[in-house]
Amino acid sequence: MTVRFGLLGAGRIGKVHAKAVTGDANARLVAVADAVPEAAQALADHYGCAVRTIEAIEAADDIDAVVICTPTDTHADLIEHFVKAGKAVFCEKPIDLSLARVKSCLDVVRAHEGTLMVGFNRRFDPHFRAVRAEIDKGSIGDVEMVVITSRDPGAPPVDYIRRSGGIFRDMTIHDFDMARFLLGEEVTEVVATAAVLVDPAIGAAGDFDSVQVLLKTASGRQAMISNSRRATYGYDQRIEVHGSKGMVAAENQRPVSIELASSAGYTRPPLHDFFMTRYTEAYAAEIAAFIAALAGKGRAEPSGEDGLIALALAEAALKSVAEGRVVKVSETL
Amino acid sequence: MTVRFGLLGAGRIGKVHAKAVTGDANARLVAVADAVPEAAQALADHYGCAVRTIEAIEAADDIDAVVICTPTDTHADLIEHFVKAGKAVFCEKPIDLSLARVKSCLDVVRAHEGTLMVGFNRRFDPHFRAVRAEIDKGSIGDVEMVVITSRDPGAPPVDYIRRSGGIFRDMTIHDFDMARFLLGEEVTEVVATAAVLVDPAIGAAGDFDSVQVLLKTASGRQAMISNSRRATYGYDQRIEVHGSKGMVAAENQRPVSIELASSAGYTRPPLHDFFMTRYTEAYAAEIAAFIAALAGKGRAEPSGEDGLIALALAEAALKSVAEGRVVKVSETL
Amino acid sequence: MTVRFGLLGAGRIGKVHAKAVTGDANARLVAVADAVPEAAQALADHYGCAVRTIEAIEAADDIDAVVICTPTDTHADLIEHFVKAGKAVFCEKPIDLSLARVKSCLDVVRAHEGTLMVGFNRRFDPHFRAVRAEIDKGSIGDVEMVVITSRDPGAPPVDYIRRSGGIFRDMTIHDFDMARFLLGEEVTEVVATAAVLVDPAIGAAGDFDSVQVLLKTASGRQAMISNSRRATYGYDQRIEVHGSKGMVAAENQRPVSIELASSAGYTRPPLHDFFMTRYTEAYAAEIAAFIAALAGKGRAEPSGEDGLIALALAEAALKSVAEGRVVKVSETL
Amino acid sequence: MTVRFGLLGAGRIGKVHAKAVTGDANARLVAVADAVPEAAQALADHYGCAVRTIEAIEAADDIDAVVICTPTDTHADLIEHFVKAGKAVFCEKPIDLSLARVKSCLDVVRAHEGTLMVGFNRRFDPHFRAVRAEIDKGSIGDVEMVVITSRDPGAPPVDYIRRSGGIFRDMTIHDFDMARFLLGEEVTEVVATAAVLVDPAIGAAGDFDSVQVLLKTASGRQAMISNSRRATYGYDQRIEVHGSKGMVAAENQRPVSIELASSAGYTRPPLHDFFMTRYTEAYAAEIAAFIAALAGKGRAEPSGEDGLIALALAEAALKSVAEGRVVKVSETL
Repeated sequence: MTVRFGLLGAGRIGKVHAKAVTGDANARLVAVADAVPEAAQALADHYGCAVRTIEAIEAADDIDAVVICTPTDTHADLIEHFVKAGKAVFCEKPIDLSLARVKSCLDVVRAHEGTLMVGFNRRFDPHFRAVRAEIDKGSIGDVEMVVITSRDPGAPPVDYIRRSGGIFRDMTIHDFDMARFLLGEEVTEVVATAAVLVDPAIGAAGDFDSVQVLLKTASGRQAMISNSRRATYGYDQRIEVHGSKGMVAAENQRPVSIELASSAGYTRPPLHDFFMTRYTEAYAAEIAAFIAALAGKGRAEPSGEDGLIALALAEAALKSVAEGRVVKVSETL
Repeated sequence: MTVRFGLLGAGRIGKVHAKAVTGDANARLVAVADAVPEAAQALADHYGCAVRTIEAIEAADDIDAVVICTPTDTHADLIEHFVKAGKAVFCEKPIDLSLARVKSCLDVVRAHEGTLMVGFNRRFDPHFRAVRAEIDKGSIGDVEMVVITSRDPGAPPVDYIRRSGGIFRDMTIHDFDMARFLLGEEVTEVVATAAVLVDPAIGAAGDFDSVQVLLKTASGRQAMISNSRRATYGYDQRIEVHGSKGMVAAENQRPVSIELASSAGYTRPPLHDFFMTRYTEAYAAEIAAFIAALAGKGRAEPSGEDGLIALALAEAALKSVAEGRVVKVSETL
Repeated sequence: MTVRFGLLGAGRIGKVHAKAVTGDANARLVAVADAVPEAAQALADHYGCAVRTIEAIEAADDIDAVVICTPTDTHADLIEHFVKAGKAVFCEKPIDLSLARVKSCLDVVRAHEGTLMVGFNRRFDPHFRAVRAEIDKGSIGDVEMVVITSRDPGAPPVDYIRRSGGIFRDMTIHDFDMARFLLGEEVTEVVATAAVLVDPAIGAAGDFDSVQVLLKTASGRQAMISNSRRATYGYDQRIEVHGSKGMVAAENQRPVSIELASSAGYTRPPLHDFFMTRYTEAYAAEIAAFIAALAGKGRAEPSGEDGLIALALAEAALKSVAEGRVVKVSETL
Repeated sequence: MTVRFGLLGAGRIGKVHAKAVTGDANARLVAVADAVPEAAQALADHYGCAVRTIEAIEAADDIDAVVICTPTDTHADLIEHFVKAGKAVFCEKPIDLSLARVKSCLDVVRAHEGTLMVGFNRRFDPHFRAVRAEIDKGSIGDVEMVVITSRDPGAPPVDYIRRSGGIFRDMTIHDFDMARFLLGEEVTEVVATAAVLVDPAIGAAGDFDSVQVLLKTASGRQAMISNSRRATYGYDQRIEVHGSKGMVAAENQRPVSIELASSAGYTRPPLHDFFMTRYTEAYAAEIAAFIAALAGKGRAEPSGEDGLIALALAEAALKSVAEGRVVKVSETL
């Protein structure tokens, strides 16, 4: 069975997914839509597919599934439309910045028994998957503490920051999902500290650039997340998971593994400087997983519900900073 | 100038300090006292010094300084006595488990213009000192976030736990001091989560065995501390400090640096399994620093005030866990 | 400009090159030939190209270049045919196992001013290229000593060994080329020791499985090569280059970068277990370099001459083992 | 039982051994001798022992053993004298630069059933010992190939070079002993290449500064040694041992284990820059082993015979370079 795809959005991330779809033996890219016709056409030319409107893709008989890479504020509407049209949906994170809107969207998905997978790509990074595999094998016993370090090489433009929903909803949200992926138990409490240390303009936009978060589950499992919008040495993406029998950690990745030794010491090159090069394999693997799920192999996960809970954790972190207290997830979900 | 020492307490840590004193060219061990006469005698025989009572050491003309390694509940009294007697005092941490008692003790030290150094030995670990030296050199720019991982190979006996003042006062206190040593600015806010995951008996004793702490300074610098009473792979002692220009980290230490490769992968041996072997150099260096300070080279630091503040941070963490909120240090100090 | 390709040989390595050609925006795979029609057809179906005979490809107007992946004993003849037919040739190593045959083949290439690139893929590994780039940048000063470790996960079948020309021509030849790539000066002397330690059947076939080689250039630059047909921990591929100002090394590669810590120590997974997964990027990059050279960007290197010299070093090593002495390269080249 | 020591030679290495002897609970330093009276006196003052002449130490009733740290050309004579006087002898390497003289000296030792241990201190480095322990445990199966990297931070003065017997007898000799310690079988063949790359003055003195050596045993086990008188990044001392079931390696050592990350990459400090700091633990452990052997625990190893064989390997390497061929050890031993 070949899954026939429509791609909504031919921007940076749209191109990444187009490459993943066309590279998968079990999928075919049928059509692409974009508000900028030239962008859609260029991508269509490259992969030999059609340019269509979103409406045409929605109505098409020859399309089974869509990948939504349009701006965030269109996600929830598009999910609802395409689920109603009977298409399987892969949507870039987040579903929406408003918890209420995400909930109503998921109600529609449920009502139509739709398939919705959300693009938390890091779950598909081979190194992080290997960490999870060790946990599943029992190598570290019962999970006790998860430590996630996630530091961006540099801050995005303040314009982006303003539309982003803030660092917890935009950046930490990946770490909330990763913490859930690794903890093996739902988070019940969140507490955070936050500061503006990288760029005062970020503070002026009402956001933070340096945050720390603690999570706790009902049985006492805990997680720590450390985020910064600055890391001069590259894209710092580490996880370590401690359990009753040991620890498993995923190391940072760099483009080349060389070491130079001189009178100044031993130097290895900086890390990847961009999420696309860092997570190349993860982007391809998440689309492959979506395609496999449509073929009946495995579930389309992370689900819309996973997107909802990660957003609720972000809300809780924000509330914790505002009120200087531990916030129960039940207060926001 | 040779500093003439009296040693109070000939137990495990007393022996460590006796070795440090006798190995220092600028010091001499004159006498040792211990409630167990055999312990004092054995140590005196080994190093060729006298056995005396605490009172005799206090009254002695031939003793300039004392090292206090007696049980915690005697520390504050002994500090006061010896400061009044005009001796310089090096005291094992903590000064006392009660903040009020520590404050009154420090009042006495101040009133007599006494010299008091507190045994936060980790400040003298060569690796951690090198981290601090890089900060001082400006290698990482302005400090932004400190991450401290401190995990014991195994939990102490519950009896010990009961007398210890709890994990924050007993174990995290070292990390509080280290955070202050590295942050370069006083901590103003503390928040913590805590759980019992290692041993229910620890919980039954009213303590925790797995804790996470966030610290924040007035300007927004932050620190994370992760503690567990269990680490199957050895004594996990890492710090990393992030700044505006980069990051500096101290790696874990192991007795031998070999690697074995086989079909099972690449394996390095576990870490040190004991604080005494991990911090051998630190114990010697802190006594050397005390001796140097008495000779006018540098200050006797960490001071009693440092001991007080670390304890206040522990109190704040405990209060944070009890009340589920961010606690200002001014509430406890 | 799009380079139109014919592929000769649809076996394991043929498939790798087909993927590289079809994945390159500046190339097109027009036709494939194989002695086994089903193999050719399967590959043609997958990539939407034609199946043709070798003769048809040779005569074709719509083909600019060929990739030769047929058995070794056909390489030299095919190179001559296609060079005469005016096609650019990329040929898998070795050109031939006989130095005399290689020389006569290169005479033909020269006579027809043909383009011939030989598949020493390791030169295109990003890590090894980065090592070379540091040398070129002057990071280590003048090159003094090169150390190459190359150990296979397991021995090939003895049948293969018998046809391989022996370990020096089959396996070490890659390291001879790498040594030349890094030394920056031609090798003038070779000495080697060799033993059978892995499998007596290899010895019975007249070959060795564990060898060491020393190389020396006219000015005294030196290289060491260590080879074994066995490495339980995976495909061990390391290089280090020492110079007057420092050292640069390329580390081993593994599929996932995780570390598991337990009471048994700290364990990372084994290395890649196969040359195709280890050198995935190198295979794609060498074809890209060939295509770029045909488009006038850079030279088609490694050249046939490089193939010849590497084989001459293999001959010299063999002679050294047989005669127990240092062999001058001029004796074999 | 306390072993009573005389120390011959109060120079740099003499001081190291004095510290080891006085730090050992089972030994006492009774007297020290040195051609420079002030040197002997300073050391005697520091450790509270007597200054005596060599003759007086030889005749003394209160001395059981001597440590010989005098210039190389006095070693053999002193060994003979003290063995005849019934003292156990620990002698710094080498016994002599002449194989014939070493042989005649060992004849005297044997004739008097003397105890002679030679100072190949590296056997006592905890990391290298751990490598050997893994071999002994069978962790890597049968030993197949040993790789030793030994590079000095800088070349010694040419005056020293002239008296040293050349790089093979002075520097590589440690590696020859280490190779024997790890191979588990006697070396039968040696071949080497050598060059002058660091300093032409070394060449003018008739020596080399950059050498490579291959060793082979009767059963085909092999070893590679790489030496240079220059390593800008510190004292490079690595070993790796490959066996039928795996590999074990000892990593380099540095004074502090920190890592600094910035836009320039990840940098660890240089290695130790001096053999005395690198091998501090080894120097103490070798004297402890000598003392233990005198108390009947273990053998006094490495023995005079070990010293002889290492020197014979050095002779063979020199001969190999001179004659451009593989040299059998039986030709020099």
